[in-house]
Amino acid sequence: MSRESVTRLALIGCGRIAQVAHLPALEKADGVDLVAVCDPSEDVVHAVARRYGVPSAHTDQAEVFQDPSVDAVIVAAPDRFHRSIAAEALTAGKHVLVEKPLATTVQEAQDLADLVHRTGLVLQVGAMKRHDQGLQYARRFVAERLGGPRSFTAWYRIGDLRPGIEATLFPHVHADPAARETEAAFKADRRRYLLATHGSHIFDTVRFLLGDVASVVVRHREDGRDQTWQVLLTTASGAVGTVGITVDVPGLPSEGIEVFGAHGSVRVDTHFPFYRRASTVHAYVDGATTVPELTDGDAYERQVEAFARAIREGGAPDPDVDDGVQAVRLIDATATAVETGVEVAL
Amino acid sequence: MSRESVTRLALIGCGRIAQVAHLPALEKADGVDLVAVCDPSEDVVHAVARRYGVPSAHTDQAEVFQDPSVDAVIVAAPDRFHRSIAAEALTAGKHVLVEKPLATTVQEAQDLADLVHRTGLVLQVGAMKRHDQGLQYARRFVAERLGGPRSFTAWYRIGDLRPGIEATLFPHVHADPAARETEAAFKADRRRYLLATHGSHIFDTVRFLLGDVASVVVRHREDGRDQTWQVLLTTASGAVGTVGITVDVPGLPSEGIEVFGAHGSVRVDTHFPFYRRASTVHAYVDGATTVPELTDGDAYERQVEAFARAIREGGAPDPDVDDGVQAVRLIDATATAVETGVEVAL
Amino acid sequence: MSRESVTRLALIGCGRIAQVAHLPALEKADGVDLVAVCDPSEDVVHAVARRYGVPSAHTDQAEVFQDPSVDAVIVAAPDRFHRSIAAEALTAGKHVLVEKPLATTVQEAQDLADLVHRTGLVLQVGAMKRHDQGLQYARRFVAERLGGPRSFTAWYRIGDLRPGIEATLFPHVHADPAARETEAAFKADRRRYLLATHGSHIFDTVRFLLGDVASVVVRHREDGRDQTWQVLLTTASGAVGTVGITVDVPGLPSEGIEVFGAHGSVRVDTHFPFYRRASTVHAYVDGATTVPELTDGDAYERQVEAFARAIREGGAPDPDVDDGVQAVRLIDATATAVETGVEVAL
Amino acid sequence: MSRESVTRLALIGCGRIAQVAHLPALEKADGVDLVAVCDPSEDVVHAVARRYGVPSAHTDQAEVFQDPSVDAVIVAAPDRFHRSIAAEALTAGKHVLVEKPLATTVQEAQDLADLVHRTGLVLQVGAMKRHDQGLQYARRFVAERLGGPRSFTAWYRIGDLRPGIEATLFPHVHADPAARETEAAFKADRRRYLLATHGSHIFDTVRFLLGDVASVVVRHREDGRDQTWQVLLTTASGAVGTVGITVDVPGLPSEGIEVFGAHGSVRVDTHFPFYRRASTVHAYVDGATTVPELTDGDAYERQVEAFARAIREGGAPDPDVDDGVQAVRLIDATATAVETGVEVAL
Repeated sequence: MSRESVTRLALIGCGRIAQVAHLPALEKADGVDLVAVCDPSEDVVHAVARRYGVPSAHTDQAEVFQDPSVDAVIVAAPDRFHRSIAAEALTAGKHVLVEKPLATTVQEAQDLADLVHRTGLVLQVGAMKRHDQGLQYARRFVAERLGGPRSFTAWYRIGDLRPGIEATLFPHVHADPAARETEAAFKADRRRYLLATHGSHIFDTVRFLLGDVASVVVRHREDGRDQTWQVLLTTASGAVGTVGITVDVPGLPSEGIEVFGAHGSVRVDTHFPFYRRASTVHAYVDGATTVPELTDGDAYERQVEAFARAIREGGAPDPDVDDGVQAVRLIDATATAVETGVEVAL
Repeated sequence: MSRESVTRLALIGCGRIAQVAHLPALEKADGVDLVAVCDPSEDVVHAVARRYGVPSAHTDQAEVFQDPSVDAVIVAAPDRFHRSIAAEALTAGKHVLVEKPLATTVQEAQDLADLVHRTGLVLQVGAMKRHDQGLQYARRFVAERLGGPRSFTAWYRIGDLRPGIEATLFPHVHADPAARETEAAFKADRRRYLLATHGSHIFDTVRFLLGDVASVVVRHREDGRDQTWQVLLTTASGAVGTVGITVDVPGLPSEGIEVFGAHGSVRVDTHFPFYRRASTVHAYVDGATTVPELTDGDAYERQVEAFARAIREGGAPDPDVDDGVQAVRLIDATATAVETGVEVAL
Repeated sequence: MSRESVTRLALIGCGRIAQVAHLPALEKADGVDLVAVCDPSEDVVHAVARRYGVPSAHTDQAEVFQDPSVDAVIVAAPDRFHRSIAAEALTAGKHVLVEKPLATTVQEAQDLADLVHRTGLVLQVGAMKRHDQGLQYARRFVAERLGGPRSFTAWYRIGDLRPGIEATLFPHVHADPAARETEAAFKADRRRYLLATHGSHIFDTVRFLLGDVASVVVRHREDGRDQTWQVLLTTASGAVGTVGITVDVPGLPSEGIEVFGAHGSVRVDTHFPFYRRASTVHAYVDGATTVPELTDGDAYERQVEAFARAIREGGAPDPDVDDGVQAVRLIDATATAVETGVEVAL
Repeated sequence: MSRESVTRLALIGCGRIAQVAHLPALEKADGVDLVAVCDPSEDVVHAVARRYGVPSAHTDQAEVFQDPSVDAVIVAAPDRFHRSIAAEALTAGKHVLVEKPLATTVQEAQDLADLVHRTGLVLQVGAMKRHDQGLQYARRFVAERLGGPRSFTAWYRIGDLRPGIEATLFPHVHADPAARETEAAFKADRRRYLLATHGSHIFDTVRFLLGDVASVVVRHREDGRDQTWQVLLTTASGAVGTVGITVDVPGLPSEGIEVFGAHGSVRVDTHFPFYRRASTVHAYVDGATTVPELTDGDAYERQVEAFARAIREGGAPDPDVDDGVQAVRLIDATATAVETGVEVAL
């Protein structure tokens, strides 16, 4: 790839998700060059820059936005900063890959969408599962072979064995203890935090395969720290389905979706992302189930490569800012439906 | 087993389910003796009696009820006759094993329950999955190891490959063409028929593992002959869950339930009953999943043996008439919830 | 099907395998008509004739062979009679479907093959797994997609949970206690009996997918009643593989084969035959695994239909008498290889 | 852990396996401190030291051996240097964790074992699968629940989809092009190289679960670059089994073993190591299969922690040098058995 065709990226926010997901992906991704990192913690940002050989390290993001050599930024700061940092970057003329959720309210998400449309810059939301090779296979299968989708069932269950898996899979993380404490406080409203964090994944998967959601009815249950949402959905196209979000269940985590159509059906089992395995897909049509054996399993690497391609080639990013708005709307509608007990239209 | 301890049974209705399920089970079951068969079709009843060596064959059920040597009857007539035949049998002093659904309306089911309670006779409902060795394992696991159930997901999907499986597994069935035509007409209201026939199984499974259901919200979809119900349920104990009933999906049939509790979880995959395999169970607790390897898989045989034991030993049948009433209530509430779109309390 | 195109069959030997496998299959198979049954036990033969509505019952097989209305016979007598009954039937001008193994010695099997070739009649060996829809799929896949087979692993393990499965799946069997005792004595040389009974299945599967076997090396182990053979094979085409035969292992039975070729691989898991499920096949080529969802699972029914077609249409039966000879040769070579410890060529 | 109780390690050889496996493991392992790295390539050794923050980098291993602050070394140099570097390290008084295979000939391996016994130092062989949580579970199950092992089947199949998986899972590797070319030349005798590299894993697994091997018979097949070994083994305890080693098969890699004993059986499916998942175990006994849900899946991290414990606590390393000798013997016997065609005793 010629030097000109490489997208020069800066990473804003070097906490856990940056070190665990984005930095290893950036180091290997084609078509990108990580030229700057930024984090409020001086210790963290320098440790990261040293480890990944990044030439420029900052504690003030304004410096990054002023740097004309930076084409685009990845926003991996805490959720409540997503919108403001993304807006600042766009205003400075930078393309943006922003971690999900796009914003914490529908209004803020919509404002950001307006800004994207005004600037004409690329904004991609970090719902990286759209770049999971298995989910992409399933999406094509739904479009081309399944017949019209009629019903579906999706689940997203965090298992209480997850900490052991993370301890095994995660690299050593350089953390700023003060920052960690501050963030824990912001996650204290677990019901809201968990729905936004996990719901944005599984709702985006539903939309990726089935299109827009028209309405939800929700039942919720709280057991100490544990939360369960059972959601009954109708899509704009008329498919009826359910989504279960549970944090935690005993045992291993489990995530997936089954879609049934006029001619076929597809089941997607999505693995814990840091196994770096594409989702396992079982696609049934015409008397046989096909299981693609997929090996390109780092969704974060594929995500940033797709982002760079969208910038270079001018195509639409996936998911785009409007998808990000819809994901926030769905989270919001789910929370409202828990409070009211009745169906909420989107 | 001594002669006295054997329950003398008559079979009322010798159509498909009788020939496919009950007669092979009765031939092998311990503690029962099939002494009479009855069917309106003379051809059918004699073919069946000859094949299974049954000493007495009738076309008029009144003769059976008058026979003092008959201890109990199995009612395997079409759904709309369940209640009346069962009532007639009870009135004649016979214990009854009646195919599900118990009745076609809640009122009729309740009337039958009243009659059972008045007579003190045993009435067991033919929801034979309660006698599936795997579901029984799961029920014990839920009670003893799972901790309080919090959430669940159940599914009952008839696959369009089912006819081929039935053609392979079913013995040759002696049928009366006229009766077959009559019955097809009664099944013409597919939405109602399918919900009653299939819903009574999966709703009974939910109640078997999780207890009474307090309310349902339902979304329904119809595509030509195909039907889908997506049900959001809250149990009396506060568990939240979903049940999906789909007739047909492309491919193989699929039936099961997953329950998540405070300490463990259990998944039950129920096989097409005529494979005569106990449900496959995965029971998780304390860092390990247990899969019992169960071999006694004919739920119909186990059902009639349990019925005979209940008669001899005086214990409660399972499911009893009140379970049968609840199953009809759930079907009724589901149908109402489809019409109204809002939550229906039971 | 016109009357002329139906093959009129007689069943010689009405013991367990006849009642459990052949009679239910014959009752449903297309293109065949069971016109006579024969068994030395008068009780058994009449019970069977009554149950299956067979017009003619005999205790002397000579009567069957003299009956000009009988086109063909199924030989389901004990192993040691296979050859002589088959020879008698051929001599009387009847086509023959004879249970495996074809004979107890290579010489007798060869003599029978000579007789078949002289008479021009159809003789099919009852290695019914060749009519398993899954194995047939695998065979086509090996021929058309796999590339040349290079290596393989096959296993045939009887599990000690098998009696419970049989008790569930088998219909009530009418047995003659004296005959049962006599036969038990003939099975007393377990090593020989088990190798012939089970080995003939798995060796025929190997030949069905991979062609002739050129040599074997074997290690054998005996633990009380339990037997293990571990066989290292080279095929005539140069593929190298292993076959493990174990009777019993703890747990469920397990049977299957994996074949690896130049372009693809295939795994076949063969279910206990009385589940009446086609083998589960995983066929890998070009980045995807295909799992055909097969529903026509009664290999005994498919076997007798194929036999009738071979008679009517004049094609080669499968397996034919030469396949039967090869199966006996393989069993014989395996037994010799156990004794000598060195490679035995076929 | 107190400073004194931490083992100070040096890593000799910083090529692919070091960067992919050892360095990430060392960064996270408890009880160890990586104080020096050494590699003939100055570029590579400095890149590695920078990335992992190692205080001391060398191109001459003699410097490492002279450093009194180094307690122990990990030898991750190419196979043909294992023995000489290990011997040099032991002579310098360092404990050694040496990548498998221990040596390229039985004599050299034995000489090294003699040296270990003379020095009293700890030498552990890098057959890291002994530290796979799943295999460790299986070993305990075999010892405590299975009853005496009677038969087994093991397989080790490299799939042609492996390069894609490696590209996804491996971090960016700093390589010296000249070194890579040199090493490729040493791997040119693929038959020998592949048997040593892969065989040492699966043979060690057999010994880990079943004890010493008494004899082997082998059939080998070569197809261009592809190699297959089918091995028939008898263990010292009398178990009979097979091991299939195939490089490449079409599709995904696959590795595992099944062991059948008097009372139970166990199946181990070992995942590609860089998924960092413990082997999946199915352990059957007494009517139920247990599947432990294991989360501590980095066998390289567990290996070096066990090595450090063996040094600190004085226990035997696992595998020890004698296990390493036996692994080389088995590889050697397998190669001889291919040449001679007859059984080779160990």
